[in-house]
Amino acid sequence: MGHRGKFISFEGPDGAGKTSVLTTIQELLAPALGERLIVTREPGGDPIAEQIRSVILDRKNQAMDVRTEALLYAASRRQHVVSTILPALENGQLVLCDRFVDSSIAYQGAGRKIGEQSIAEINHFATQGLLPAKTIYFDIPVSVGLKRIAQHRDTKKIDRLDVETVDFHERVHAGYDRLINQNPDRYVVIDASQELDVVVAEALTAIQAVAPEYFE
Amino acid sequence: MGHRGKFISFEGPDGAGKTSVLTTIQELLAPALGERLIVTREPGGDPIAEQIRSVILDRKNQAMDVRTEALLYAASRRQHVVSTILPALENGQLVLCDRFVDSSIAYQGAGRKIGEQSIAEINHFATQGLLPAKTIYFDIPVSVGLKRIAQHRDTKKIDRLDVETVDFHERVHAGYDRLINQNPDRYVVIDASQELDVVVAEALTAIQAVAPEYFE
Repeated sequence: MGHRGKFISFEGPDGAGKTSVLTTIQELLAPALGERLIVTREPGGDPIAEQIRSVILDRKNQAMDVRTEALLYAASRRQHVVSTILPALENGQLVLCDRFVDSSIAYQGAGRKIGEQSIAEINHFATQGLLPAKTIYFDIPVSVGLKRIAQHRDTKKIDRLDVETVDFHERVHAGYDRLINQNPDRYVVIDASQELDVVVAEALTAIQAVAPEYFE
Repeated sequence: MGHRGKFISFEGPDGAGKTSVLTTIQELLAPALGERLIVTREPGGDPIAEQIRSVILDRKNQAMDVRTEALLYAASRRQHVVSTILPALENGQLVLCDRFVDSSIAYQGAGRKIGEQSIAEINHFATQGLLPAKTIYFDIPVSVGLKRIAQHRDTKKIDRLDVETVDFHERVHAGYDRLINQNPDRYVVIDASQELDVVVAEALTAIQAVAPEYFE
């Protein structure tokens, strides 16, 4: 696709710390890049995507079927792509996105056992084939990730999606492993069990390697 | 699929009168069939499907992308299938459903030009291949249908989806024509420009032909 900007996604299992890394990177890059940098995550501030998201996360919706949930994620993603990501790329911006299609493949396809190929297909409909130029994967053993979550979460704020088994998280991790094996050129894998400053430095190196035009 | 009930959908362009026909048929069949009959339409009273539907119909959501809308319809349908249609079929009931997958293929696929095959695919994900045993199609020329709508609608209640061009409705009609040609065994076509009692009688005949076990 002839976009002038560059699109990089951040992926990883829960507790890998990728959101903290992304926040730090944003602080580090913002002074130099200014408006050339966009850091986003679904629903990306789009009012329609936010409405969809609130249906997904509503704790009352325990009866939501896993395929309903997967279609809602795809719908929210579509709106985020159209309202935020594509305009930013057309505008020549560097787009760092916290989770994208691969999260759905790992969480819904593998974790919820819907099937990775099916989830890839409905997301292809949603994105019309838009893929990140590079995906930075923050790798952490399931047990370590879950321990981190338990330490940091405010239990009053736990939503419908947090109530998952260890088996679920193991399947998600295995799903990511398959994505990495299938897309070795797109993925950069970082050991997220290292100290935060090391993880940030490695992620910055990966960003500079794929988007050198923003660092000249 | 080994369902014990029978699933019949009602399809047609706006203004064909199929909802009136369905209401009349429900009144006629209810005394004899009792709880063996279920008449439903999306969102089918399911609270999650209702929430999704309210996002689709919200007049504030003018910026909704057509693919977002298509995914939301598929999500709402999935929930309706799981909460209402499949349990009714498992329970041996006769399910008459006002619009199903074919509406999305005609309206989103053809009408909104997303592509009929793409819409069929995301709906196949939603329904896992569930199809009506028979689809009764209420055929009406676009111009007649639109005139009927204009006469009956309360303009204060017009939602986001009513604001469509004649071209859109022509594409929808053509989309239905293709579905009928592709599925001649599944479709029964009724001339909906006839008097209501004639249309009702023809629809009843079609229902009895495909579901004779309910009329013995």
